Amino acid sequence: MTSPGKGNSGRELRAEIVTIGTELVQGLIVDTNSAWISRRLASVGVPVDFHTSVGDDEARIEFAVRLAASRSDLVMIAGGLGPTADDITRDMLARIAGKKLVLHQPSLDLIASMFARWGRQMTENNKTQAFLPEGSEVIENHNGTAPGFCMKIGRAEVQVFPGVPHELYAMVDEFTIPRIRAAQVVPGVIKMRRLLCFGPGESAIDQKVRHLMALDRNPNVGLLVHDYVITVKITAHGSSEPEADAMIAKDEKDVRAILGDIIFGVDDERMSDVAARELIRRRLKIAIAESCTGGMIAGMLTDVSGVSAAFLAGVVSYSNESKQDFLGVPAELIAKHGAVSEAVARAMAEGMLKRTGADVAVGVTGIAGPTGGTAEKPVGLVYIARADAKSTEVRECRFSGSRDRIRVRSAVTALDMVRRWALTATARGK
Amino acid sequence: MTSPGKGNSGRELRAEIVTIGTELVQGLIVDTNSAWISRRLASVGVPVDFHTSVGDDEARIEFAVRLAASRSDLVMIAGGLGPTADDITRDMLARIAGKKLVLHQPSLDLIASMFARWGRQMTENNKTQAFLPEGSEVIENHNGTAPGFCMKIGRAEVQVFPGVPHELYAMVDEFTIPRIRAAQVVPGVIKMRRLLCFGPGESAIDQKVRHLMALDRNPNVGLLVHDYVITVKITAHGSSEPEADAMIAKDEKDVRAILGDIIFGVDDERMSDVAARELIRRRLKIAIAESCTGGMIAGMLTDVSGVSAAFLAGVVSYSNESKQDFLGVPAELIAKHGAVSEAVARAMAEGMLKRTGADVAVGVTGIAGPTGGTAEKPVGLVYIARADAKSTEVRECRFSGSRDRIRVRSAVTALDMVRRWALTATARGK
Repeated sequence: MTSPGKGNSGRELRAEIVTIGTELVQGLIVDTNSAWISRRLASVGVPVDFHTSVGDDEARIEFAVRLAASRSDLVMIAGGLGPTADDITRDMLARIAGKKLVLHQPSLDLIASMFARWGRQMTENNKTQAFLPEGSEVIENHNGTAPGFCMKIGRAEVQVFPGVPHELYAMVDEFTIPRIRAAQVVPGVIKMRRLLCFGPGESAIDQKVRHLMALDRNPNVGLLVHDYVITVKITAHGSSEPEADAMIAKDEKDVRAILGDIIFGVDDERMSDVAARELIRRRLKIAIAESCTGGMIAGMLTDVSGVSAAFLAGVVSYSNESKQDFLGVPAELIAKHGAVSEAVARAMAEGMLKRTGADVAVGVTGIAGPTGGTAEKPVGLVYIARADAKSTEVRECRFSGSRDRIRVRSAVTALDMVRRWALTATARGK
Repeated sequence: MTSPGKGNSGRELRAEIVTIGTELVQGLIVDTNSAWISRRLASVGVPVDFHTSVGDDEARIEFAVRLAASRSDLVMIAGGLGPTADDITRDMLARIAGKKLVLHQPSLDLIASMFARWGRQMTENNKTQAFLPEGSEVIENHNGTAPGFCMKIGRAEVQVFPGVPHELYAMVDEFTIPRIRAAQVVPGVIKMRRLLCFGPGESAIDQKVRHLMALDRNPNVGLLVHDYVITVKITAHGSSEPEADAMIAKDEKDVRAILGDIIFGVDDERMSDVAARELIRRRLKIAIAESCTGGMIAGMLTDVSGVSAAFLAGVVSYSNESKQDFLGVPAELIAKHGAVSEAVARAMAEGMLKRTGADVAVGVTGIAGPTGGTAEKPVGLVYIARADAKSTEVRECRFSGSRDRIRVRSAVTALDMVRRWALTATARGK
């Protein structure tokens, strides 16, 4: 291998990613593999310079692979290893490297054993998946029938994987990452820490941490806005992993002192992960009553493994009758204030709290659009209530954007209110 | 413009997409813009050959843009038009084209009016967004402060957009698509129809439609597997739009005769869109009781605008107490069969039906993992019940994969059972 972690001359190794499949360039599938591979390579200090997607076309695959191999040390290729006629990645890679495809018997045995286990007949097509470029190193696939392979093209190391995400993920983690770590003999690692903020806008956060954001500073500090999260990204180049970690820890401490509880999580955490963790840690029970978010808050929370220790129940009370029947919201209250009102959000949360005996309950009602808005109650108006045994807080929000954006923003705001409540719930000695 | 819809010599126009942003190649943001642009270009018969993502780096942006302009007729560029120092797309495009950046006063006025409307101070940085390469055509942005622009580099037309999806989408639909249509003087359009299947595996569908799948056939018929959907993709090249439409209609009729109600929808439809539509069309009311899917089914259904005509209520009964209290599932039943059992799924659906007076109710209970499985009841075991006034059907499913995969697969299977039921509900003259 081209000395991963550094280049031939001791400089930093550069990687790029090529994904292959007509469905990608036709836009029928969004390429999530490239982003995933980039994050994994970054975690071992290997930066990625380019992502390229190309269809199942001989000339274009050859062009993309030759270009990548000419300018990068490590080329990660995903896709086109299936058993059908339009899967031509194996053939193209062999041709580019000037090699023949030869049968790799252990891979054929593995494929045959998988079909035996599934109780299905192996087709002739599947056998083609066991033919690999002569002299290449096999990358085992324990989750599917297509083995990957690793070979040299010019001075670049080229690693080839199937495009099925869970197969690819396991193979990169089992083959690529340990291989890079093992070859990393030279000092020089890049580490990154992401501090995830929710609430204030980008410019407010920018003003508070701008003094850390000089481009030539090490660690480098930058801002990134995506969906509901503003990320403060701290990237340190150190001569060793402990050194880089220490540099990041110092900046993280400074940023936390400035931004406080605006920071809800780190790295790949979601708001739901953090809210669930804070509840579980304090043995607090939660119940959710949703109208406009329609089950999304419950869905986000229950996507967290182990949340059954904290999550009791949810009610999606879309109709007025269900608000009365499941939550005990009085019909008169709805008639007087309307289903989208502070009073009804409050009654939903308090009704759910009483009904379930939870420590905290949430009630959300609003107008997600695109229709249903009025001058007085426009699309985007959402009331979010959070109730505990002592008190109820209700927030009136005015969100903009599509139905989906309004729903997601509402759900995350509710979870952030729960997260903040859970932090103080301890402080009160609960 | 390079005669969009055809190339200089009357051949088909070829496009490619370059997205710019360090967060893309670092994998912190998944590039969904390229797939979206590809689908929009395909809708007016322009195929896309490459997607390239590159960081905010002068040399790499220049390399990627020059390469794209040298091999494609239309280059769509997105990203790097923000107001901060690392947004260098404007500068780089001007340099590559050998032009100066000059102030575009109408754009500056528009930016100033946006800040006035928001009641915020315009910064010096934002003024840089109104500087465009000399001689370029402005692409107006009504949703943000960064105008786009359109210019020639060599023989290619290059269109440059901000990376914020909803800004980009509106600009492509208002500028690019009408421009391509207006210039399409030469016959030759590509149309595509996607028939979405759920249930049987790829090979079963492959065998049934294989006779249509010869690579050189027009229309071309292909299969695509993604998440829970197997797509039969029909692509027709015709001399006119009506001709291409007629070719597709004939193949679609044949495929529908073969596959029947395995086909649940077309093109961009989701299972939830179709299930909601069939319910609304027949004025059927639905209620959902969920355990392992945790609100996901309700969340999917309520993501469909207008579903309040059909959706009454949902209950997420995670704890055993909530199954008893909200749904009337007897404690003895849970004690005898376990919470994950055919009997409990049935009781959840029937309890929800009774409680809400809906026409149809769903009950789902299972083990989504990663923990909680036993030898007898492994992770992935899910019971899905669908009840109406006359009868209840319960399906025992054994799904594999991650927690998220098991939950999604469970939710979509439940919605498919609802969809199929709704179709027969009419046939029975309900």
